[in-house]
Amino acid sequence: MSLDIRINISGAKSSAVGPDHGVTPLDLKESARLIGSAHGVLAEDRKRKRHGFYDLYKDKATLTDVKRTAASFARFGFENLVVLGIGGSALGMTALVSALKPPYYNLLSREQRGGHPRIFVMDNVDPDTFSAMLKLCPPEKTLFNVISKSGGTAETLSQLLLVLDALESAVGKARVKNHLVITTGPSTGRKDPNPLLFVQRAYDAKAFVVPPNVGGRFSVFTPVGLFPAAMLGMDVDGLIAGCAAMDARCKHVSLAENPAYARAAIHYVGWNRLGKAISVMMPYSDALRDVADWYRQLWAESLGKQRILDGRAWSESGQTPVKALGVTDQHSQLQLYLEGPNDKLITIMDVKQFREPLPIPKVLPEMGGAEYLRGSTMAKLMNAECKATAGALREAGRPVISVSFPKVTAHTVAQMLYMLEVETAMAGRLFGVDAFDQPAVERIKVLTREFMGQKGE
Amino acid sequence: MSLDIRINISGAKSSAVGPDHGVTPLDLKESARLIGSAHGVLAEDRKRKRHGFYDLYKDKATLTDVKRTAASFARFGFENLVVLGIGGSALGMTALVSALKPPYYNLLSREQRGGHPRIFVMDNVDPDTFSAMLKLCPPEKTLFNVISKSGGTAETLSQLLLVLDALESAVGKARVKNHLVITTGPSTGRKDPNPLLFVQRAYDAKAFVVPPNVGGRFSVFTPVGLFPAAMLGMDVDGLIAGCAAMDARCKHVSLAENPAYARAAIHYVGWNRLGKAISVMMPYSDALRDVADWYRQLWAESLGKQRILDGRAWSESGQTPVKALGVTDQHSQLQLYLEGPNDKLITIMDVKQFREPLPIPKVLPEMGGAEYLRGSTMAKLMNAECKATAGALREAGRPVISVSFPKVTAHTVAQMLYMLEVETAMAGRLFGVDAFDQPAVERIKVLTREFMGQKGE
Repeated sequence: MSLDIRINISGAKSSAVGPDHGVTPLDLKESARLIGSAHGVLAEDRKRKRHGFYDLYKDKATLTDVKRTAASFARFGFENLVVLGIGGSALGMTALVSALKPPYYNLLSREQRGGHPRIFVMDNVDPDTFSAMLKLCPPEKTLFNVISKSGGTAETLSQLLLVLDALESAVGKARVKNHLVITTGPSTGRKDPNPLLFVQRAYDAKAFVVPPNVGGRFSVFTPVGLFPAAMLGMDVDGLIAGCAAMDARCKHVSLAENPAYARAAIHYVGWNRLGKAISVMMPYSDALRDVADWYRQLWAESLGKQRILDGRAWSESGQTPVKALGVTDQHSQLQLYLEGPNDKLITIMDVKQFREPLPIPKVLPEMGGAEYLRGSTMAKLMNAECKATAGALREAGRPVISVSFPKVTAHTVAQMLYMLEVETAMAGRLFGVDAFDQPAVERIKVLTREFMGQKGE
Repeated sequence: MSLDIRINISGAKSSAVGPDHGVTPLDLKESARLIGSAHGVLAEDRKRKRHGFYDLYKDKATLTDVKRTAASFARFGFENLVVLGIGGSALGMTALVSALKPPYYNLLSREQRGGHPRIFVMDNVDPDTFSAMLKLCPPEKTLFNVISKSGGTAETLSQLLLVLDALESAVGKARVKNHLVITTGPSTGRKDPNPLLFVQRAYDAKAFVVPPNVGGRFSVFTPVGLFPAAMLGMDVDGLIAGCAAMDARCKHVSLAENPAYARAAIHYVGWNRLGKAISVMMPYSDALRDVADWYRQLWAESLGKQRILDGRAWSESGQTPVKALGVTDQHSQLQLYLEGPNDKLITIMDVKQFREPLPIPKVLPEMGGAEYLRGSTMAKLMNAECKATAGALREAGRPVISVSFPKVTAHTVAQMLYMLEVETAMAGRLFGVDAFDQPAVERIKVLTREFMGQKGE
């Protein structure tokens, strides 16, 4: 069996859904031309290390450090790993956990978990959730990984103050370092205002560095994602190999060979000519549901930009990413997708082989209405529903891209994440925006401090 | 403190965000006129019992049955309650669980859970998830509540066959009825093809009835939602009282007094005149996150409709509902909401009082960058971020409706759900579609059976 994910764009072509909603050969030709020149720019940026995400998987020193650190903390036998982080500091590792650890992982016994800790990702400041976590995770049995590239993220800092207070009381100041790992940007010297660097020095704690040329939403293959992955016993080498495999495919400039560019082209035409304001990511697999959530940030924050065209006019660009889940959302969103406005470009992800097919037993043979289920498997039902949805969408003239996973493994999930990163970088060029900044959210930080009663800072 | 949720539409008015993106006094006047006549139609429908959801809270006999049944099953001391259901059979009760049970509920000890069972909602047919559930929930310690109004839902039936097989092996056929509660439509006689009625007879199991005039997405206050709620020890009387309180407000036809109609009017103008193709529901509360998910189905499936205008022309209507979570999604979606296309109408929900404010300790006083956090509370930070987001959206000219919860309780959550149901019924009239059907998804069922290899049925 091939280890490669397969991307099929035929359902998004005009031959499938007509020229008003599908990409025509002319569209593809024109996109290929734009992509040809943008590829050169991005390749140059990569060479100059302006965008570090492309080459993270080659950083063997960091990988070794991650593995060694994880092994050394594993000796303490922690019951819990708690990640303090939000946005890009949380979504990538959450996607990896959902994809690669068993369902209901935190409910399993230590033995069933392979001796690895439970995982709690604190990506909000809901006081009820946070205090519930503090009760569930006694500090002495817990490793806290605090993640913030700037070190100054309000949500993460407030969490950290609570955790440090609890840790100092429980284990004493000198032992805090046995329960704390910091992941943040590099130090620019002793006067660096990054609060996490202060914390690192105050407790002599281990710190991982997020490279300055890698933004939060592109950071899953830095220690931001890799260290929790290693602590939970995931196949980090498989992740790295998956990145390498996809990078090899993404070095081609041709849309036929480069799935990231093919997807970028279709999303660009969808946005630009076909009125597809929404990009839906719909995995038919519980394990992949948080890959869709990770994509939501990547796509929204990278492309949702105001662009000044001249002194007075501006354009607002960006597709709204939507996470859906097959088959669950067939009973929630599909009515809208089939009959509502044809304003969506839908990516359907399917999985060829689940861990267990789960045969449906031939119980109650006299009961009608279930003949087609008995003796089949739940995996087959999942795949039949996926095919049915793709078929019905095509019949209704709605464009669909299919992404097929031979299996959900570290290797295939990393391919998907890496592909979407390359796609997003290219889409930024096509949409004419900077895919790597997020200027608008600064205003929220200012207002939040104001409402917290802070005047001076 | 008032027990009422408060709805504030000022942020969606032209006085806040201008006439291109906000609702003008003229818009409101025109909507009020349309709503005035639609109100008469809906009131007549209600009186004729065409739409049963309005009066469910008055059904004392069902409530008594639900409570008595829950009490009788509680005596068995089940460790787990497993709901088999999808779409409207799962989303309402999931919203109630997230809102009203403590965070990480399934990780708590039996004592911490107040003696109530853990809860697993099986709303997908992912074989890996389902087999993990079967391992975690030994049949002899588990009560299964299978929910399907038609009784023929493929996903739910396939799950049920697996469960019945496991139950028969574990406890014997005669005792299956001690582990099974069926919730389905009423019987139309011995020849009713509803498979769940066959199962009910085969095991002599308890069955609750979903009234025929209540669709799945409007069924949370039938035994679909109420029985699991009662099994988990929720305040079902509070839910009923919350419905009654909101019904009293929704009997007014004036937009100033009826929050459901005010919201319907704004969403209608948003859709019709302001180009708001997307309706975002963004609670600043982990507890309310699945209320937003429940709303996704209600809004999408009710309004996402093709409408034949005459023999040849048709229009496609329906706003795409999007679930977001504050503050988490500030670090994921807000860049897009602030600078991307102004195609969204955003509802922000805030909670005045959390269970615990969670004071932020004054640890590490020498560390800079956190002065505004120390000595404050996490609840205050949550609320400051909520205000900051609403403020920034207004500055950016994006329309916002605010919904404020004094506290998250059975009473307030029920008000919210009931309000959204009334709003949706009215929106159906304004959008000119039947809010109570879902014709398009039938095609999926046909195709699924085809792909499962079923020819005859």
